Amino acid sequence: MAEHKRRRVCVVVHSRANYGRIKSVLAAIREHPALELKLVVGASALLYRFGNVREVIERDGFVVDATVYTIVEGETPTTMAKSTGLAIMELATIFENLKPDIVLTVADRFETMATAVAASYMNIPLAHTQGGEVTGSIDESVRHAITKLAHLHFPATDHSARNVIAMGETAESVFMTGCPSIDAIAEIDLALPTDLFDRYKGVGPQLDPAKPYLVVLQHPVTTEYGAGTEQIEETLAAVHGTGMQAAWLWPNVDAGSDDISKGLRMFRETHHDAPIHFYRNFSVEDYARLIANCACLVGNSSSALREGAFLGVPAVNIGTRQSAREHAENVMHAGYDRSEIAAAMERQIAHGRYGRSTLFGNGDAGRKIADALAAAPMRVQKQLTFR
Amino acid sequence: MAEHKRRRVCVVVHSRANYGRIKSVLAAIREHPALELKLVVGASALLYRFGNVREVIERDGFVVDATVYTIVEGETPTTMAKSTGLAIMELATIFENLKPDIVLTVADRFETMATAVAASYMNIPLAHTQGGEVTGSIDESVRHAITKLAHLHFPATDHSARNVIAMGETAESVFMTGCPSIDAIAEIDLALPTDLFDRYKGVGPQLDPAKPYLVVLQHPVTTEYGAGTEQIEETLAAVHGTGMQAAWLWPNVDAGSDDISKGLRMFRETHHDAPIHFYRNFSVEDYARLIANCACLVGNSSSALREGAFLGVPAVNIGTRQSAREHAENVMHAGYDRSEIAAAMERQIAHGRYGRSTLFGNGDAGRKIADALAAAPMRVQKQLTFR
Amino acid sequence: MAEHKRRRVCVVVHSRANYGRIKSVLAAIREHPALELKLVVGASALLYRFGNVREVIERDGFVVDATVYTIVEGETPTTMAKSTGLAIMELATIFENLKPDIVLTVADRFETMATAVAASYMNIPLAHTQGGEVTGSIDESVRHAITKLAHLHFPATDHSARNVIAMGETAESVFMTGCPSIDAIAEIDLALPTDLFDRYKGVGPQLDPAKPYLVVLQHPVTTEYGAGTEQIEETLAAVHGTGMQAAWLWPNVDAGSDDISKGLRMFRETHHDAPIHFYRNFSVEDYARLIANCACLVGNSSSALREGAFLGVPAVNIGTRQSAREHAENVMHAGYDRSEIAAAMERQIAHGRYGRSTLFGNGDAGRKIADALAAAPMRVQKQLTFR
Amino acid sequence: MAEHKRRRVCVVVHSRANYGRIKSVLAAIREHPALELKLVVGASALLYRFGNVREVIERDGFVVDATVYTIVEGETPTTMAKSTGLAIMELATIFENLKPDIVLTVADRFETMATAVAASYMNIPLAHTQGGEVTGSIDESVRHAITKLAHLHFPATDHSARNVIAMGETAESVFMTGCPSIDAIAEIDLALPTDLFDRYKGVGPQLDPAKPYLVVLQHPVTTEYGAGTEQIEETLAAVHGTGMQAAWLWPNVDAGSDDISKGLRMFRETHHDAPIHFYRNFSVEDYARLIANCACLVGNSSSALREGAFLGVPAVNIGTRQSAREHAENVMHAGYDRSEIAAAMERQIAHGRYGRSTLFGNGDAGRKIADALAAAPMRVQKQLTFR
Repeated sequence: MAEHKRRRVCVVVHSRANYGRIKSVLAAIREHPALELKLVVGASALLYRFGNVREVIERDGFVVDATVYTIVEGETPTTMAKSTGLAIMELATIFENLKPDIVLTVADRFETMATAVAASYMNIPLAHTQGGEVTGSIDESVRHAITKLAHLHFPATDHSARNVIAMGETAESVFMTGCPSIDAIAEIDLALPTDLFDRYKGVGPQLDPAKPYLVVLQHPVTTEYGAGTEQIEETLAAVHGTGMQAAWLWPNVDAGSDDISKGLRMFRETHHDAPIHFYRNFSVEDYARLIANCACLVGNSSSALREGAFLGVPAVNIGTRQSAREHAENVMHAGYDRSEIAAAMERQIAHGRYGRSTLFGNGDAGRKIADALAAAPMRVQKQLTFR
Repeated sequence: MAEHKRRRVCVVVHSRANYGRIKSVLAAIREHPALELKLVVGASALLYRFGNVREVIERDGFVVDATVYTIVEGETPTTMAKSTGLAIMELATIFENLKPDIVLTVADRFETMATAVAASYMNIPLAHTQGGEVTGSIDESVRHAITKLAHLHFPATDHSARNVIAMGETAESVFMTGCPSIDAIAEIDLALPTDLFDRYKGVGPQLDPAKPYLVVLQHPVTTEYGAGTEQIEETLAAVHGTGMQAAWLWPNVDAGSDDISKGLRMFRETHHDAPIHFYRNFSVEDYARLIANCACLVGNSSSALREGAFLGVPAVNIGTRQSAREHAENVMHAGYDRSEIAAAMERQIAHGRYGRSTLFGNGDAGRKIADALAAAPMRVQKQLTFR
Repeated sequence: MAEHKRRRVCVVVHSRANYGRIKSVLAAIREHPALELKLVVGASALLYRFGNVREVIERDGFVVDATVYTIVEGETPTTMAKSTGLAIMELATIFENLKPDIVLTVADRFETMATAVAASYMNIPLAHTQGGEVTGSIDESVRHAITKLAHLHFPATDHSARNVIAMGETAESVFMTGCPSIDAIAEIDLALPTDLFDRYKGVGPQLDPAKPYLVVLQHPVTTEYGAGTEQIEETLAAVHGTGMQAAWLWPNVDAGSDDISKGLRMFRETHHDAPIHFYRNFSVEDYARLIANCACLVGNSSSALREGAFLGVPAVNIGTRQSAREHAENVMHAGYDRSEIAAAMERQIAHGRYGRSTLFGNGDAGRKIADALAAAPMRVQKQLTFR
Repeated sequence: MAEHKRRRVCVVVHSRANYGRIKSVLAAIREHPALELKLVVGASALLYRFGNVREVIERDGFVVDATVYTIVEGETPTTMAKSTGLAIMELATIFENLKPDIVLTVADRFETMATAVAASYMNIPLAHTQGGEVTGSIDESVRHAITKLAHLHFPATDHSARNVIAMGETAESVFMTGCPSIDAIAEIDLALPTDLFDRYKGVGPQLDPAKPYLVVLQHPVTTEYGAGTEQIEETLAAVHGTGMQAAWLWPNVDAGSDDISKGLRMFRETHHDAPIHFYRNFSVEDYARLIANCACLVGNSSSALREGAFLGVPAVNIGTRQSAREHAENVMHAGYDRSEIAAAMERQIAHGRYGRSTLFGNGDAGRKIADALAAAPMRVQKQLTFR
């Protein structure tokens, strides 16, 4: 490929989480003399109920080259599959018209899979971040499948890099860069803005930035589809039981999200005065400030393990979604059980902030990835390589 | 899953090649007391220009539970991606309505990928044949990506089975069964029916079953998109140069197929009398008879390596599509070069039939796969496993 | 067509409103000796946030032959177009597999358009209810476009029937049957069940069935996309200003629905104690009871004009969505203006129940439609006919 | 709408016929000071087997702003429906990104329908050419349905204009401009280039420009799906019976096209030496020269009635596809019957060229349409209007 003077790198941002994990790379590509950025925004990043991530992106100064709606509504396993198919179809047209030399895709979501499949069949070299990590949920299968489609790998940890190579990828295609999510937060002022809870509108009683607070973010586990309402009720009981105020983020768009939202809404109806405020989204930096200053981060977001490690956030990880993922000492695990969760939260709140871990990087991933994108040899034919 | 009394196994047949590779499994599932077959026919298996594979399937006595058109016309890399997306969307609806306990998918085509992605996101355990083989083209990437999505693996050779495990699959999920394509031909009378060339209509001069003949089948190499016309001209020159009559099959529906067809059509316009007859399709058994009795099988079909090994067919494999694939002694390789191809054909024609190799199985793959489908523990959560 | 012994009629139900408008026809088809019913449920009728219409359908004793998710999330004009396209693609596959002799489609929604386009191109005779009515919104254009695609017309009023013929349809293809929505409510006990407000779960304070109440249902006007939040705030102010309790239904899935929901949610956050309860759905019969006994039905639902005419419901119709539609004396119009709305509500509440109007039918539409479906000559070629 | 300084008009070209019918409008928009052209090329205009219409467009100096593959392969009624759905989905994304103020769509094909539906739901004012004409095939239904969706009508004849108004469109929205297809041929040198038959490559014996020749173009009639092979055999027999040489164009992509192509291919196999050359495409001007100089134009292309009227081409129209369409004296009708066709051809060949008819315009349609696009008031809400 590489028909253009500068290598044209197309990045597809699908969700708020996605964006935080790739923002520093977008900036590094944009500024790299040998690279040209094409930015596509799709999926839940376009939806109001996920907080208009597209607007956040544009406020950050990025030009959006194309938008594409790809979520088939339902939040069931069937619609997750259909959303993947729809995204492949439309991304193919977008790639056909934007003519990228490289497509860069983030992590392991269904939109990531769609990006990877579209690029692969179109003979566009595919670069991939976060390969080689081990988790739960369908993400686990999808992440490794994408590794088998990708031509350039940017794993976030040494262990992940070894896993990518062990799966049969050539060592020359693997660049251990750390996770770009760390870049975005490595050099910012992490103090909690006193107006943070005012600036973001959500539902529920106002939070007091002067008092300790919890942050909760629990997504559905697609491979445990149907159990979401029950699972979230355990977390709600544990969080509510602390009596502490909490900033709670609505779950992502995966299958089963409806079940979790339903649990949250039922709780709201019967607990109007519970000191829990529900948010749709924060900017990447404000989210970092939010968790950097919380008493405990609860749920199953990978941010507890990634950004949380770097920021030393006391975290309780619930259930199987992240249970197998590499993590630093800041994370304690709990099952889907209110007393287990409560006990872990109690210990973490008592412990307070942990020391910084650079397990997932130290803040220069964006630049390293941009350099590799500019310099790496491009080929589309892959081959399984076992020594 | 496994909500039904008998495990409901859904198989999606997409193409003529697909069908030959899974036919014996379909029969074995249909007859297994603990299994129920749901058969979906889609993609090029519905298209007239590929010889109405659907009718062949029904003539073989199988009931088709659903049909679905999924090929976006164009035969470019873009349309190959779009066809994959379209198939995922529609197969999701079909699976939603057929409610299979297991989905079984064959080999490495884009329709296979579509089947795998749809089933994976729908939490339906996925079984996969032909995993772990090493080839060229996009199929190489896709095959291994599907392995990372699949829950049950039915590789065709010992070496492939080791590759699947090496990629991080648990040994318990891997069943080396041999390739079902061998089953279909292991016990049939392989004599060339004298009316074979009459029964199948195509274009070009009639062939004489009493004289030696070549068989040619050369598909596009998607990762070499754009080079197809040039590549096929080399093969045409070599085949025509022998002066021998030839049965030539039109290529499959992959990106670049148009280029190959174009080359073939241009040849036809200028060589009306060349003794080459072009066919759309043969029944699985007749194709076996056709190649079992030919002087040489030329091109890049994997049938030269799989069925060809078992039948001892002298074969010339051209280019990169199969160059890395395991094979028996019946295969010689040649580049995209008329003299290389001609030289190899000459040696193979002179050599004549090879001895039987059971590298790809000995005829009991269908039964073994059905037994494994009936007995294997079903789970949907996977996890990367390295010793 | 008509290949089957009994004519196979496929009906696609897409939404709660859809279902009420066709339920009696479904029953009449099911019981007709010369007809066979195939029922497909899709679009918002599958979604939890619209109250699981599919379950209501099954509780009513209908067998669902296929389900299909077709809503592309976003509730923008773009996603409304995409949802239409997605539905066409998938309904084509479903029709291909169900092989109907006739497809029957309801009214004027985007899903209706999708059904009509799919059937038309597939040479399946298309029957259509509610043709010839004049309204606002995109529905106005779509309704008449569907008339031009349909082969059998079942308009609900004499005036509509004349309009259909005036557009160039042959008089023999037009059957003025009245609206099936009247059938469902013509013979039921219309007393308000005392437990009605308990049986349906929603959000907001509990309503007291012993006291007067309002019913509110206001959908987005797609051709005024962007104005929804402002429009609903006027209605909210007027309704809240009455001090009366209200049962409020969430809007449908059209473009702009998000804006209305946003207005409703913002109101809820600041008016926890306002005596408004928000519902997702009611059974067809309970909805009739709900409006038959309300002090005033407010908003822009066509139910105010159709069922409302028959039940004599005092109704205030807001804005352009229904402003041009035929109606009985029970309807007063108001602009998007809180004082206009309030004034109209005041007069209607003071007036109380109106006499029965059979403008939209008298309860035998289902049977008439089924008879026509069974007896009408079937042809697919249409032709514009002007005297 | 109209957010841009110049009104941004998006035109979607889907096929070779489409392009000839809109080319002069494209030029007029491009040159109009108050308009900006956005050109999308999709459907069969991208396919090699229809002669790379995209390349013709670019050679004519137009910039293609986006391409989109939308044909689902199969050429059955089912795939025609699916292609329509696919095109709606993708055009919605393209319109979302190109942000047109007006969308202009041509005639009555399924891609036209797709364009119309996408624009309508997106609140983009829709302009339409060729409304109000009466024909056969599904095109008849679709053409009038599009009229009901369109905001600006550019019918080609007075009678058509009256039909559009009779269907309930306001007279102010109807501009009788004549057909742009006439513009392209009104002022060119119509002499047959002596190298014409050399410049276009097809299959079959070379034609001699110095001798009389026939031109044949017969498309499938979708509403007579299944009868195509039989129908084309009649035409083949009649044409071959004349002993005259013929330039034959492959049919379009409608349902049933496969049947016609099959008939043509079978004929070729058994009549290698028949003096018939099969072409994929001609430039708009060369096609005009081709038919302007032929002995007779045979088949069911509307070009016989439109361009043929202006050029005075003796034409035999076969079957129902155009049987109801307005036409000048140059057209004789024949059924699907070889002797009827032969008799009509004989009379037309004997008659020779007819005088010019301006029934379908006199060459200034493009300019008139551009002016109307620039000046017409833009609104999206329509309403049925009967006096």
